[in-house]
Amino acid sequence: MRRAIELAARGLGSTSPNPVVGCVITDAAGTVVGEGWHERAGGPHAEVHALRAAGGAARGGTAYVTLEPCNHTGRTGPCAQALAEAGVTRVVYAVPDPNPQASGGAATLRAAGIKAEGGFLEAEAAAGNAAWLTSVRLGRPHVTWKYAATLDGRSAAADGSSRWITGPESRADVHRLRAEADAVLVGGGTLRADDPHLAVRGVEGATQPLRVALDTRAGLPATARVLDDAAPTLLVVGEDADTRHLPDGVDLLRLPLHEGRIAVHDLLAQLYGRGVRSVFLEGGPTLAGAFLAAGAVDRVIGYLAPALLGSGPAALADAGITNIARAVRLDITEAVRVGTDLRITAVPVSEAVPTPTAPKEH
Amino acid sequence: MRRAIELAARGLGSTSPNPVVGCVITDAAGTVVGEGWHERAGGPHAEVHALRAAGGAARGGTAYVTLEPCNHTGRTGPCAQALAEAGVTRVVYAVPDPNPQASGGAATLRAAGIKAEGGFLEAEAAAGNAAWLTSVRLGRPHVTWKYAATLDGRSAAADGSSRWITGPESRADVHRLRAEADAVLVGGGTLRADDPHLAVRGVEGATQPLRVALDTRAGLPATARVLDDAAPTLLVVGEDADTRHLPDGVDLLRLPLHEGRIAVHDLLAQLYGRGVRSVFLEGGPTLAGAFLAAGAVDRVIGYLAPALLGSGPAALADAGITNIARAVRLDITEAVRVGTDLRITAVPVSEAVPTPTAPKEH
Repeated sequence: MRRAIELAARGLGSTSPNPVVGCVITDAAGTVVGEGWHERAGGPHAEVHALRAAGGAARGGTAYVTLEPCNHTGRTGPCAQALAEAGVTRVVYAVPDPNPQASGGAATLRAAGIKAEGGFLEAEAAAGNAAWLTSVRLGRPHVTWKYAATLDGRSAAADGSSRWITGPESRADVHRLRAEADAVLVGGGTLRADDPHLAVRGVEGATQPLRVALDTRAGLPATARVLDDAAPTLLVVGEDADTRHLPDGVDLLRLPLHEGRIAVHDLLAQLYGRGVRSVFLEGGPTLAGAFLAAGAVDRVIGYLAPALLGSGPAALADAGITNIARAVRLDITEAVRVGTDLRITAVPVSEAVPTPTAPKEH
Repeated sequence: MRRAIELAARGLGSTSPNPVVGCVITDAAGTVVGEGWHERAGGPHAEVHALRAAGGAARGGTAYVTLEPCNHTGRTGPCAQALAEAGVTRVVYAVPDPNPQASGGAATLRAAGIKAEGGFLEAEAAAGNAAWLTSVRLGRPHVTWKYAATLDGRSAAADGSSRWITGPESRADVHRLRAEADAVLVGGGTLRADDPHLAVRGVEGATQPLRVALDTRAGLPATARVLDDAAPTLLVVGEDADTRHLPDGVDLLRLPLHEGRIAVHDLLAQLYGRGVRSVFLEGGPTLAGAFLAAGAVDRVIGYLAPALLGSGPAALADAGITNIARAVRLDITEAVRVGTDLRITAVPVSEAVPTPTAPKEH
């Protein structure tokens, strides 16, 4: 199963709106005869890849799958049926399928006389599919807020300079995380201050995420780097924004303004409707504060540089919190060195366990 | 030698203005026959304790000492001579004594026909004596700046509330570090906002550090907790501060003001003159900024709580840095979990980082 989880991770960033899934098939004697993972939405599921590799050797064997095999016919046939037809006699899966459209795979298998057991390495497999599981549960994309700051929490110096707070290893790591996400999101302040490009570079085989630029007044110039053709871009503006200066062909999404701002959940609903299951929120502090205030941050990844500034903009701006008792409390799930920096991964305490069925452990 | 370094650490916080020193003595056959450490200033040196424990068994044996044995007669006799008289035939030490008053011990030993070798586990032993070695080198106390903050660098919420940002394990850890320091220092803002007590609690056998309260205008009330008798206190005020409201017997130090502020190096020189070799700077942000601007922070210990606030005072205020190229760069020497918090220890990188010339990318 651990191998299947490894295989599943290869699909991160290219399977949405589907989950990542990995599958290992052994023959009747327990020898691995097929491996597969869900590589891209619309392509064959992990089980189908693995069954093809196994061929006749799957007969009498066992399939190890990270997610309960699907039971419905979408762009591909149901995997439960495919496994039964291949003569697999036992299916071990990690996470039950929470998707009402696809669930029931285990029951179908059992009806076909196949032994189906769930919950094996469930927490580990669920962690690998956290974004997709969260999006199914909440009906909105999973949001990772990434920031880079000094040890004293500054994302830039007093004069606005920020190149480079973190080291090259951290910046490369960010490209890897962008590649795992369906969409990368920045706000207007960051667009104007940094003219970010947001495309993935240096990650072999990466699927470019959708670049989402949130710019209420469409104040970005036609020459903004985020509008180039290195990756798809969605420009989200207020309903009455003047966009006549922008080049033709820019994919525009107009959303209503509430007190001059686009509502976080309006934006997330629109992105979800476009198949986005995971958002990598890169800034700036105002947008991050709005997401936090909206309860729409599911994971925090902070790159802390071993440096002190003492002044300059904070990594996080107003999230509507005025008293320490109202602080957003997190669980730090990982703290590792990345080059000379420290990368801290944390999840809000209330969302520490992404699947309702997973046993509570910390 | 590793054992001697462990023994030395037991003296942290109670030996100033002397270093911490540990000593292990083996007999001629290599069996440990005596151990000792320098327990308190004015008391016997580590070697003397170890020699007493070893008695006649030291004859023909070896002494392992973390610091080159002293050569001068202060409140106690020179250790080099004591080792020679005990019949030790070999002395292995880690760090050469940088103190001009005490050095020359190895030469004295050699003149007495004893084999004296230095440099064994030197880096490790020097780390254990970092505060004292720094104070000898710079002629001022070693300064550790400690802060507690959220992941976004806030040391309190917008309404000033800060109890508790960090967890009980971190707060206990701070008491341990206070106990290792000669003095604990806070500024006027913290005194007025938090009324801190600053004494060590919950550390068995701890020597209370000197509580140093820096309050330019002597604005603290007579009832301030820092003025109680739980530990000695030095109140540092501007030369013309009105202190008539304070109780009799408060130990006052008046220092000249420069643009309304007490100069960091004036303060450190006065503390050094009083035998303080290590200062634990606990806040607040303004004082920390002044110390950083003065180049007077030798170690940073940050307790990062897994929480986000988005507003509220920063852990570090203005240190005179406006551009990212002038950021104070550090080396993170340790990052460990303390309860649910993360404790980061870092030391300044001695050389300035050149201005970045990398191409623009994001």
